[in-house]
Amino acid sequence: MPQISKKGKSLPASAIRKLVPYADAAKERGIKVHHLNIGQPDILTPKGAIEAMKNANMSIVEYTNSAGNLSYRKKLAGYYQKHHIDITEHDIIVTNGGSEALQFAFSACLNPGEEVIIPEPYYTNYNSFAIQSDAVIKTIPSYIEDGFALPPIEEFEKAITPKTRAIMVCNPNNPTGYLYSQEELNVLGQLAKKYDLYLFADEVYREFCYDGAEHNSVMNLKGLEQNVVLVDSVSKRYSACGARVGCIISKNKELMDAAMRMAQARLCPPFFGQIFSEAAIDTPDSYFTDVLAEYDKRRHVLVEAINAIPGCFCPMPKGAFYTMIQMPIDDSDKFCQWLLEDFNLNGETVMLAPATGFYSEPEKGRTQARITYCLKIEDIKAAAKCLEAALKVYPGRTK
Amino acid sequence: MPQISKKGKSLPASAIRKLVPYADAAKERGIKVHHLNIGQPDILTPKGAIEAMKNANMSIVEYTNSAGNLSYRKKLAGYYQKHHIDITEHDIIVTNGGSEALQFAFSACLNPGEEVIIPEPYYTNYNSFAIQSDAVIKTIPSYIEDGFALPPIEEFEKAITPKTRAIMVCNPNNPTGYLYSQEELNVLGQLAKKYDLYLFADEVYREFCYDGAEHNSVMNLKGLEQNVVLVDSVSKRYSACGARVGCIISKNKELMDAAMRMAQARLCPPFFGQIFSEAAIDTPDSYFTDVLAEYDKRRHVLVEAINAIPGCFCPMPKGAFYTMIQMPIDDSDKFCQWLLEDFNLNGETVMLAPATGFYSEPEKGRTQARITYCLKIEDIKAAAKCLEAALKVYPGRTK
Repeated sequence: MPQISKKGKSLPASAIRKLVPYADAAKERGIKVHHLNIGQPDILTPKGAIEAMKNANMSIVEYTNSAGNLSYRKKLAGYYQKHHIDITEHDIIVTNGGSEALQFAFSACLNPGEEVIIPEPYYTNYNSFAIQSDAVIKTIPSYIEDGFALPPIEEFEKAITPKTRAIMVCNPNNPTGYLYSQEELNVLGQLAKKYDLYLFADEVYREFCYDGAEHNSVMNLKGLEQNVVLVDSVSKRYSACGARVGCIISKNKELMDAAMRMAQARLCPPFFGQIFSEAAIDTPDSYFTDVLAEYDKRRHVLVEAINAIPGCFCPMPKGAFYTMIQMPIDDSDKFCQWLLEDFNLNGETVMLAPATGFYSEPEKGRTQARITYCLKIEDIKAAAKCLEAALKVYPGRTK
Repeated sequence: MPQISKKGKSLPASAIRKLVPYADAAKERGIKVHHLNIGQPDILTPKGAIEAMKNANMSIVEYTNSAGNLSYRKKLAGYYQKHHIDITEHDIIVTNGGSEALQFAFSACLNPGEEVIIPEPYYTNYNSFAIQSDAVIKTIPSYIEDGFALPPIEEFEKAITPKTRAIMVCNPNNPTGYLYSQEELNVLGQLAKKYDLYLFADEVYREFCYDGAEHNSVMNLKGLEQNVVLVDSVSKRYSACGARVGCIISKNKELMDAAMRMAQARLCPPFFGQIFSEAAIDTPDSYFTDVLAEYDKRRHVLVEAINAIPGCFCPMPKGAFYTMIQMPIDDSDKFCQWLLEDFNLNGETVMLAPATGFYSEPEKGRTQARITYCLKIEDIKAAAKCLEAALKVYPGRTK
């Protein structure tokens, strides 16, 4: 039997995926599982965009331009202009979700063995894409105590080696919910400039900033035009994770030319999803106002409920719809599995994402989990009650 | 300014893409360009499948299973059963088109520097995906004189080195139109077994076999269950290249597990495209009978018209909708560009795909081009007339 490749062997299975069979088994036993683990919003996708896609005239579902339909890219440039990001359709390549934009960025910028510096905890799949490009992720710790603010820039500078090619941020952040300030982005930008590094930014949660905070894009860093690569997606913006429409944006022509050759090899992004996404740009502002208000309510309910549990702490997230929670437990993976396998409160339990998957060394995430506020308020409250009851009886409780 | 990666630099721009600006310029001058170069069928997509997608109930366009919707995979297994390919939903991972299935196969099976043996000429993008996996394509020449039949198996065996990991075929073949016989597949299978190699097969043109010929799938090679990897797509089957729905199929669990971890990293295949593709399985057989009859007519018209041109030869293709044409010219790239830049017959010209892009060494394709019969019969006839007139006056004509 032929062997699979080393890369095939080394790609990690995510900590969440490992729990899925236990969640399924719990459901089979009649347990109601509250999914605080997932990033799939329960918010309705804008009806107008779905209807526009359904009403589109389509007799042949043909290849689109490899860079994405021109009409969509033009309208998308308008969306960015509205958000004070000055780009044109020529700076955009439409991708199969933000995932492919990350793959293009990593593959076009990083040689085997080269390094990307990322504050941790960080989104697990960055590591999968790095492995696929034979690149290496180097992490700078950020801490739950200050809500996972940007670590001191000196820490980044110390981590730079001759192999460092890029710094990467997710802003607002998955999994921490942190929103980087203009000042934090400025110092990152200066460092990238000083060492001639790429600055990758995943800004897919741009619309989700709370307390009236403004989102600041790396695209507006002056003098960094050749360094900055923006990764974006319609998934979270329009609660349309399945559309698989994202984009890579950069003013660096050489990089975009390489990304375009990758785009040509895989032929094109999805036809239906692009029609949907083009129409979605007309979504009225009121949709976002309503969605943001709903998330804001959920955020307060979740954070207050968690912080009321003895021994638990979670910071108030400033963006996206995640936060990290610190718990009095021995091992996050064990605890999350135990919640599904051995615990229920009146037939209900809760599923969390073990934080071990969000750190370079699982040890660092042993007492943390990522939780989301994608659920309805009553479910968030029920989930928090389950968690509180569970922590009272969990055999691996530490304090 | 940061440098792009070596891989970013080395990915080729396709020979066809280089011609696009010349085609656009010709159109701007009012020239009608007959596109014999493209694999985008003008055949209508089955209306029923489009309507079913439009009528589907969708309030949240959510992530699907990373392996593809279970309902789609089950129905797809039924499609394969109908085509005498004995697989279940567990042997299938749904991908972003056949392109991603190829990427998964290459990345999961090939270590850097390892080799895949492919008969040439071959589909250009295989090379792009090999480069992305740091793998190397080794070619065995097949020849226009016998319609690009499988080269003697001894040639394959001679090409095997300690670095060889796979043999790959496209069946029916793009760009040659050749359909491999059961006997040819058997000897390839025996060789793969003898040297414990993977056998990759791209069977996206399965439905397009002429003269009553049966398509034989590598999935039915006995004793090769752990070696065979099937790449498939709905693109050509339903004239739905834009749906971006393909799949990778294998009985090799270790390989499929690695592919699944890649699938999880990129989250999921397209939501809309999968609904469309699931419905498309109900397309009545009459659709294929009609489409095949239409292509068959076009095939005869094209091949007869080309072979009537003095100095030209093209074999009768047995499958897909491509054939290769031999011409009395100095250089296929130059000639194809000249057709667009300097030639017209009463305001019309023709665009071909230079064969240089389908060979490991461009030199081998200097006097050939790939042509498709995706056009209506009257356009095929007009295109052939243009080509005949062009060859009479082309300054680089060789005989």
